[in-house]
Amino acid sequence: MTAIDGDRLLARLDALAQISSGGPGVNRLAYGQQDVVARDLVAVWMTAAGLTVTLDEATNLIGRLPGRGGCSRLLVMGSHLDTVVNAGPLDGAYGVLAAIEVAAASHSLEHELVVVAFANEEGARGTAGLSGSRAIGRPSTVDLDALDDDGVSLAARVRGAGGAPDAIGHAAWVDGSVVAYVELHVEQGPILDRSGCQIGVVEAITGQRQFDIEVLGEANHAGTTPMEGRRDALVAAAELVLAVERLAADGGARVATTGRCVAEPGVRNVVPGRVHLAVDLRDTDAGRLETATGELLAAAQRIGSSRQVAISVERLHDVVATPCHGAIRDAVAASAEQLGLTWRSMVSGATHDGQSMSAIGPVGMVFVPSTGGVSHAPTETTPPDDLVNGANVVLATIVQLDRGALCDHTVSAGES
Amino acid sequence: MTAIDGDRLLARLDALAQISSGGPGVNRLAYGQQDVVARDLVAVWMTAAGLTVTLDEATNLIGRLPGRGGCSRLLVMGSHLDTVVNAGPLDGAYGVLAAIEVAAASHSLEHELVVVAFANEEGARGTAGLSGSRAIGRPSTVDLDALDDDGVSLAARVRGAGGAPDAIGHAAWVDGSVVAYVELHVEQGPILDRSGCQIGVVEAITGQRQFDIEVLGEANHAGTTPMEGRRDALVAAAELVLAVERLAADGGARVATTGRCVAEPGVRNVVPGRVHLAVDLRDTDAGRLETATGELLAAAQRIGSSRQVAISVERLHDVVATPCHGAIRDAVAASAEQLGLTWRSMVSGATHDGQSMSAIGPVGMVFVPSTGGVSHAPTETTPPDDLVNGANVVLATIVQLDRGALCDHTVSAGES
Repeated sequence: MTAIDGDRLLARLDALAQISSGGPGVNRLAYGQQDVVARDLVAVWMTAAGLTVTLDEATNLIGRLPGRGGCSRLLVMGSHLDTVVNAGPLDGAYGVLAAIEVAAASHSLEHELVVVAFANEEGARGTAGLSGSRAIGRPSTVDLDALDDDGVSLAARVRGAGGAPDAIGHAAWVDGSVVAYVELHVEQGPILDRSGCQIGVVEAITGQRQFDIEVLGEANHAGTTPMEGRRDALVAAAELVLAVERLAADGGARVATTGRCVAEPGVRNVVPGRVHLAVDLRDTDAGRLETATGELLAAAQRIGSSRQVAISVERLHDVVATPCHGAIRDAVAASAEQLGLTWRSMVSGATHDGQSMSAIGPVGMVFVPSTGGVSHAPTETTPPDDLVNGANVVLATIVQLDRGALCDHTVSAGES
Repeated sequence: MTAIDGDRLLARLDALAQISSGGPGVNRLAYGQQDVVARDLVAVWMTAAGLTVTLDEATNLIGRLPGRGGCSRLLVMGSHLDTVVNAGPLDGAYGVLAAIEVAAASHSLEHELVVVAFANEEGARGTAGLSGSRAIGRPSTVDLDALDDDGVSLAARVRGAGGAPDAIGHAAWVDGSVVAYVELHVEQGPILDRSGCQIGVVEAITGQRQFDIEVLGEANHAGTTPMEGRRDALVAAAELVLAVERLAADGGARVATTGRCVAEPGVRNVVPGRVHLAVDLRDTDAGRLETATGELLAAAQRIGSSRQVAISVERLHDVVATPCHGAIRDAVAASAEQLGLTWRSMVSGATHDGQSMSAIGPVGMVFVPSTGGVSHAPTETTPPDDLVNGANVVLATIVQLDRGALCDHTVSAGES
């Protein structure tokens, strides 16, 4: 049975991690100098694997390997090369380099095989993220005028990195042009590592609801203001933080997090008059997210009333869950078994480029363990055997999908 | 019966409030240009009242009115001219200007009468505060090398405002030299206003314990980290904030406040790994503060254990409660009754210069209502009649103390 070149994959992962603007960890913010250098190096490796390489208007790096023509649609693999600040060596890079190894090990596929290194998956400098994949799959959601934390527009960033923002519409792919999109990624959570399982077959990429909450009480002297009659915004916010956690109790949302808590004026001897909270709820089930949203609003109402503070809850953009296609999940599971690897079904709790790609075809994801569940940190790591195994699972999956049922019927986006 | 000049007091309060470096409210940070201008104006008013004016090494402005010599010790009134940022017109200024009116209305006292405008009561730019009164009453607690938020030493601030930091030891007064220190102040809390009472007879200036608390959990991806096994520093901190509030429940500390809460990294999609809290407990009873401290440590231990986070509690400097002398309290209460004013005993929840002065003689305080309990804010206000009443109570109190029992026996500092 054909296998990918594991030693080369691991060596290239190490080499790519050296392209970083200082430490700790790997720093390749999207559109920055190191990101472009990494892209150029990956283009060389794509070419060496026999792929024909182009850079699209959105600065997605695209490598194509012609098929025998049994089907006019594309088999696509991809991930990203950009990182968060102080990242690890695997997030994104692993999926791209493994896809190149899969292409190098593929022979005589019916479909054209495409490897994509998507631009700005992470959302560098406060941007929305998934910029490159949205330009391909959901072009109407790309806001080129949006300014990042440095006050620079996305258009300027794309242009600076060699793209063509004025022609970004040409980066979009036709709905139905993709027979399957498969992304390999480190889990970024502890589930595989804790359970000692080698491969994660992703059922769905999580949906997400985000809220900005303001608790408005009354700032007052901490020494002279009696407890009775205080309108302390922080004690009210504390009750709300605990209520958010309870949204994920039995039968509730999968995860519920208050990530941000800012108390004003924020000095020891003043009763806080105002607190800002940022809340993040995630589940693949829209109904559970809706229920949790209702409970959050009810808790805010109840706490505001009992504490005599005004609590306003602003609902930000929702991310709709992306189900992974059943045929791709089946192919991943069968490939794992064929290779003698343990696998389990699981949810992706993080967002991925597949969410964009699901608009134009079926998507699937393969996870390998993240040691200790560590993610977005310099200590991110995965055992080498697991990294090689994951790439071999994708190779076997691609081979199966190339011959499989997906091409024989009309596929609707997001079907599961 | 002699009365103070109420119209002049109110007019001078208005005039002094104009000496401010911009708005909103009054801004006269200690040792700054506006603070020095205000001090110079008040020196003129002291002189006009017949006082002999000096500036001491710590930039305390001191006006002296000789007595008939029946007692060699001093009757002292005082407060401060410096303000917090965006202050009101009364905090500090009221006590100083009222003291000048009391001196102007006094005739033939046995004791030398002293009016002090203390330097840097508020603790401008992150300094410790009470700088001037500590130089007089507790000189060993003055740290001239301490740097403020601008990186400037207290010594440099004092020198810049016309003081002599190298000779600051000369600012200290001899223990026992003060027969009574009386300070008139706005309450800065809602108790008098809520109860419709005209005069507050202060039993004690509150004691205070301060804590810096660090909650150390584990930062992690908010989407991929299951609820089970999270070590979320913010939910643990939320439980602690509510536990701090309970420290002031029935029989506990008078007030308990968490004024500061900083979560790190503080972004929506990351489980907080670290939270800093700043806690402030106040009571006049050291036993209750000790009990509350024990309960705080126990709560930290309990929450840390159940949440699998490390909670460290650092106890900062304690402020010991200052009891007000019984003879001064009696004189204030008798004066209020003599003037037909309603009064009640109460605690000062804020710190005041009397805490420094208590080291060298008996202290007492008189409060007038703060409308709505508002303090340290541009909207700080007190009805004019109450302001005039407060000054007349101090005048009657000084007259009583001049004739009274305090001079006839040995007084120990802080006796009550």
